[in-house]
Amino acid sequence: MATNGKRVREILSWYSSDNPGTLNNLARLLNHGRLGGTGKLVILPVDQGFEHGPARSFAPNPAGYDPRYHFELAIDAGCNAYAAPLGFLEAGAAEFAGRIPTILKLNNSDSLYGGDDPCPAVTGSVGDALRLGCAAIGFTIYPASGMRNEMYEQIRELAEEAKAVGLAVVVWSYPRGSGVSKKGETAVDIVAYAAQIAAQLGAHLIKVKPPTEHIELEAAKKVYEKHQIPVGTLAERVRHVVQSAFNGRRIVIFSGGEAKDKAGVLNEIRGIAEGGGFGSIIGRNSFQRPKGEAIELLHEVMDVYANV
Amino acid sequence: MATNGKRVREILSWYSSDNPGTLNNLARLLNHGRLGGTGKLVILPVDQGFEHGPARSFAPNPAGYDPRYHFELAIDAGCNAYAAPLGFLEAGAAEFAGRIPTILKLNNSDSLYGGDDPCPAVTGSVGDALRLGCAAIGFTIYPASGMRNEMYEQIRELAEEAKAVGLAVVVWSYPRGSGVSKKGETAVDIVAYAAQIAAQLGAHLIKVKPPTEHIELEAAKKVYEKHQIPVGTLAERVRHVVQSAFNGRRIVIFSGGEAKDKAGVLNEIRGIAEGGGFGSIIGRNSFQRPKGEAIELLHEVMDVYANV
Amino acid sequence: MATNGKRVREILSWYSSDNPGTLNNLARLLNHGRLGGTGKLVILPVDQGFEHGPARSFAPNPAGYDPRYHFELAIDAGCNAYAAPLGFLEAGAAEFAGRIPTILKLNNSDSLYGGDDPCPAVTGSVGDALRLGCAAIGFTIYPASGMRNEMYEQIRELAEEAKAVGLAVVVWSYPRGSGVSKKGETAVDIVAYAAQIAAQLGAHLIKVKPPTEHIELEAAKKVYEKHQIPVGTLAERVRHVVQSAFNGRRIVIFSGGEAKDKAGVLNEIRGIAEGGGFGSIIGRNSFQRPKGEAIELLHEVMDVYANV
Amino acid sequence: MATNGKRVREILSWYSSDNPGTLNNLARLLNHGRLGGTGKLVILPVDQGFEHGPARSFAPNPAGYDPRYHFELAIDAGCNAYAAPLGFLEAGAAEFAGRIPTILKLNNSDSLYGGDDPCPAVTGSVGDALRLGCAAIGFTIYPASGMRNEMYEQIRELAEEAKAVGLAVVVWSYPRGSGVSKKGETAVDIVAYAAQIAAQLGAHLIKVKPPTEHIELEAAKKVYEKHQIPVGTLAERVRHVVQSAFNGRRIVIFSGGEAKDKAGVLNEIRGIAEGGGFGSIIGRNSFQRPKGEAIELLHEVMDVYANV
Amino acid sequence: MATNGKRVREILSWYSSDNPGTLNNLARLLNHGRLGGTGKLVILPVDQGFEHGPARSFAPNPAGYDPRYHFELAIDAGCNAYAAPLGFLEAGAAEFAGRIPTILKLNNSDSLYGGDDPCPAVTGSVGDALRLGCAAIGFTIYPASGMRNEMYEQIRELAEEAKAVGLAVVVWSYPRGSGVSKKGETAVDIVAYAAQIAAQLGAHLIKVKPPTEHIELEAAKKVYEKHQIPVGTLAERVRHVVQSAFNGRRIVIFSGGEAKDKAGVLNEIRGIAEGGGFGSIIGRNSFQRPKGEAIELLHEVMDVYANV
Repeated sequence: MATNGKRVREILSWYSSDNPGTLNNLARLLNHGRLGGTGKLVILPVDQGFEHGPARSFAPNPAGYDPRYHFELAIDAGCNAYAAPLGFLEAGAAEFAGRIPTILKLNNSDSLYGGDDPCPAVTGSVGDALRLGCAAIGFTIYPASGMRNEMYEQIRELAEEAKAVGLAVVVWSYPRGSGVSKKGETAVDIVAYAAQIAAQLGAHLIKVKPPTEHIELEAAKKVYEKHQIPVGTLAERVRHVVQSAFNGRRIVIFSGGEAKDKAGVLNEIRGIAEGGGFGSIIGRNSFQRPKGEAIELLHEVMDVYANV
Repeated sequence: MATNGKRVREILSWYSSDNPGTLNNLARLLNHGRLGGTGKLVILPVDQGFEHGPARSFAPNPAGYDPRYHFELAIDAGCNAYAAPLGFLEAGAAEFAGRIPTILKLNNSDSLYGGDDPCPAVTGSVGDALRLGCAAIGFTIYPASGMRNEMYEQIRELAEEAKAVGLAVVVWSYPRGSGVSKKGETAVDIVAYAAQIAAQLGAHLIKVKPPTEHIELEAAKKVYEKHQIPVGTLAERVRHVVQSAFNGRRIVIFSGGEAKDKAGVLNEIRGIAEGGGFGSIIGRNSFQRPKGEAIELLHEVMDVYANV
Repeated sequence: MATNGKRVREILSWYSSDNPGTLNNLARLLNHGRLGGTGKLVILPVDQGFEHGPARSFAPNPAGYDPRYHFELAIDAGCNAYAAPLGFLEAGAAEFAGRIPTILKLNNSDSLYGGDDPCPAVTGSVGDALRLGCAAIGFTIYPASGMRNEMYEQIRELAEEAKAVGLAVVVWSYPRGSGVSKKGETAVDIVAYAAQIAAQLGAHLIKVKPPTEHIELEAAKKVYEKHQIPVGTLAERVRHVVQSAFNGRRIVIFSGGEAKDKAGVLNEIRGIAEGGGFGSIIGRNSFQRPKGEAIELLHEVMDVYANV
Repeated sequence: MATNGKRVREILSWYSSDNPGTLNNLARLLNHGRLGGTGKLVILPVDQGFEHGPARSFAPNPAGYDPRYHFELAIDAGCNAYAAPLGFLEAGAAEFAGRIPTILKLNNSDSLYGGDDPCPAVTGSVGDALRLGCAAIGFTIYPASGMRNEMYEQIRELAEEAKAVGLAVVVWSYPRGSGVSKKGETAVDIVAYAAQIAAQLGAHLIKVKPPTEHIELEAAKKVYEKHQIPVGTLAERVRHVVQSAFNGRRIVIFSGGEAKDKAGVLNEIRGIAEGGGFGSIIGRNSFQRPKGEAIELLHEVMDVYANV
Repeated sequence: MATNGKRVREILSWYSSDNPGTLNNLARLLNHGRLGGTGKLVILPVDQGFEHGPARSFAPNPAGYDPRYHFELAIDAGCNAYAAPLGFLEAGAAEFAGRIPTILKLNNSDSLYGGDDPCPAVTGSVGDALRLGCAAIGFTIYPASGMRNEMYEQIRELAEEAKAVGLAVVVWSYPRGSGVSKKGETAVDIVAYAAQIAAQLGAHLIKVKPPTEHIELEAAKKVYEKHQIPVGTLAERVRHVVQSAFNGRRIVIFSGGEAKDKAGVLNEIRGIAEGGGFGSIIGRNSFQRPKGEAIELLHEVMDVYANV
């Protein structure tokens, strides 16, 4: 795979409406780490402390209670970037300044309150991202929630502000809420739709879940059947999702999901890579392992992407 | 039909309260493409990726997954303008700069969550429209929704802002929600009312659906009968709708509706043209066809308008 | 009746807290038209296209579909002012600039959605009123609606803004909603209360409906009986309403209500005039008649006021 | 009682965090009228036209329909200040400029709509208070309403703004709503709590209702019994309420309540004065009497306070 | 324990993303009083007048009705800081300027209205904190309330503003509301989660309740058992909570809870100190005792922390 910058320039060409500041930050994300220059990305996200609580997140590998650990893990493993909420970034941004691109997650949910139509709280700002030296803002939307409009309008405003000051915009697009079944959250039509929505909202980089073969919406099912869209393998489904994000002209990466064994992780990555996915964002499967193991796994993941 | 600019000057004279910047952008819309200078318009809108999902929108003609395709289609077919949400415009605005007037759709709905009283999310801004070089903003209102006031107040604010910076304002006025029956959404009294509301809200260009013969409101029915307003043919109904938009002193265009065969499309267009409609906005019926066929169809549509 | 400006100066003296810009615009309203200088006003309001729909409003006299018609009617009939929503004013403000004072109605309701506690949408701004050369803003409140506070707070803010830039403030005060019965909407105690609320909110000019003999509130009934407030004739009730607006130190005018025959209209006007009402705001009863008849009627109405 | 300014200086010393502008306006309130310099205040409030309607408020003494009447009454009776909503102040502020300190009531309720959790509408601004030459803003909170937070947050913002421009802040603290029984609204524990809340919100001057012997809250009752807080007489209860407002270091005045006979009024005042209350705010009991009687009553009330 | 400033410098090093103004204010808190320089803190908070009412708060020691009393108590006892709502701070900030760091509590609840999903009212601003010379803002969040997002978004905005002007941010993190059982409010998993949330929201100093052995969440229980996290003693639980706040790199202090006897207080303090807690915030257990006793108790508490 070429790492002479050609692929990165190609990718940047898809974002020709953006200002040089944003292009520069996209380039920072694409050029950093072991996959730098390949057009592929592996990102370390650590928002589970907020989302699931500290013990559930860090007890398996207590080093992770320390915010510095995750900066170090991302740096040592050669990730493209490290994404976290305000507190975690504030706790290391100065110490690790200049060593890895960071993404400030601007909204977060905790697990202490439920509800059928979830909506994360906005917990950071574009100003925070700037003062902490971040390359991008991150934002989660839940299409299919009764609160989706609130999230769309928040990211609209934040994204406009971020682009104006030269930051990149990463959108986690996770359908969830009363408009979709539990099984449907990862249905291939829903994941493809989620990628499209994020792209239409102006995301530069889109994170979705690996899609399953299930098709959720009746109106969509007819179309998938009529046009015989292949969704039998993960690679096929990933290809469809990537196509659904402006025919591959937006960077789409995939979450690692729940902690699982190494074989399980790598198997999934191969499917994503084969389908043209741009990379992975791997949280629990990395930081909940001992550091050595985590780095080993991340390197193997990167190798899969590097060798597509 | 005169194309020496007289008709365009006449139309612009209806907007005498607007500043020269807005008049200039209205003129850009009216003077571009195969219908340029005739006072008629055919616009390509592509927001279905957001509204219906990617596969339902683009699988029939997969070239449409690529945002550049729609710019090209609109340019090659000689449309007056191309309208789309933020993401689609960002993905081509620089590459196709100066080649076709664009309209940034500032609000959008997806199909992943229902509800009796729908309200699109605001997904773009006047600032976005300016930085992307657009000629106009587009905005959808749903009269008859319990959320109508939110939409009216959003467009009020956006329209004031747009007019101050010299943009034109296009309003999609689609009655929908718990105040109207499904059948009533296209009833002639409702469509006429929808056109009036958009006009009173200050729209320069109004998009409604082709009206049916049905009359929804009891209070209206008495008036239609008493004054024997002719609504038997599509042309008559269109004439009434155009009259309802300030006696024809606001540009009213009609949506193409669901995908259908060519004869069906052209038949409807003839009715609209005969009734004094200012043109059509044709999405699925164009971009879901192979490009050649789509251009052919759009040309035939334009010919109908050109030959009124 | 003196028209040497003395009465106008007297009326202006009631508004001594206002800046010269606002006093100037109040004077414009009071000095224009056939009743100019008398301290009485007849205003043409045309918001029915928005409120009731185009056919119900304009089919009886189709000339009214055209926004220019109403400017001309108001000018030709010698009205003091013409009041309308944004769209209608934009469609004529430049053409008829300087020929009649205009009032921009800043909020409007349509009939496509009901609900027990109505609230109009804000559809215009003070900035709009300025750029369109208006003399005043107009705003409707619905006391007795569960949404009344929203309206009071909107007009508070708009009125402060309007007064700061030298515009006058006209409030339509129409009790409506779950706090009042249908019959109570025009009860004399309710109409008097509505006038008081508008006055306390800082309105310069208050529009209410002609009050009926009915008394709605139990607590009020005791007071009316104990103090033997005369409410047997329309003139008595109007006198009470005018008294309720700061003892006659605020301009109170009365709506014409539903379309009715000429005798009916004039009879009502005589009662209003006799009771000390400052004038009328006559919509459907004027613009739904053929122009000649409408002007004749408006002149007769003006004559009643001129000859009090 | 000393009127050499010593008491006023002592009172001002409690507000040492305030800027000289605010201290100056507090001094204006304390130094004006027959009680000027005594540290006691009698204020005329006239918001009943808005709160109860015009006839219920002014029919007993029709002179009160005229906004000038209340300025004159407050001036002639030698009150410390006159408090009213926007409309009433605008109708006299210029004419009576410099003759009596005024307090602009920034929020108001009407009686046309009920509901278990009341919240007044904000009907004026700090800017209005400045342009009308007021010494203070007035604001009503309803602790125990489900809407209390809205009111607390409104007054927080308005008070910060008022203090920044040198105005004083008067808070009417009237527990009301679904969190308290009707009887509990004037319970001594509730009134004391209401005074504390207003003080903690930063009020300079607090208006509460005369407390009854009733104790509303179970948790409070235990404390009153255990510590044997004397609440048997009005004087004792007032003393407790004054203590509850920062141990007497905030000015607490008491409302006159419903209209009653002179003996009833004066009896209550004696209890308030004996208990260390700083004065009274007397509306209906003054302006609903003929002017001569009202002044006589107000003078007797002032004498009670002057002779403590 | 070293008081040569080394420990304070170490603690400040954890906040390396903050500006010198904020570091200076953190240092003020850490260097003031009898524990100054030890890295431990005892803070006097007095918001109970607002939260529980005046009599329940101050009747046990009536000196506390006077706002000056609490400044004096905090100063005389050698506390690190004094925290209170707007009113209490305004009533002493000038008089006691420069004698003790203060923390302005920016939100508060009263007990007059309940509800399953509580949310305090915002009752102060960063501007208030600045004009009153405070070292920090204080803010309460209720994770597990249906209103948690409102609170998270308020503190996000206030914290960003406070940090920009060099103030420190103290967060009271008290899970409460329909997402958690009464018993669960102090469960060790919930308290640890509360500390994590506050840290992720960007708090410099976190206040939680002493945790009990109870584990509330099923998903958490599995983790505590699997990884054998010791929670049998208070010291163990405190250690876990401190670890949950960025592995001890955020200052976590503990509330004193309900008034209890001295032995009970000191016993709890020993457990907190042994577990690595950074100190205590002791309200009712100090100000409800006679001043001499209170100071004695506070000194004994400080001694426990000083001798760890």
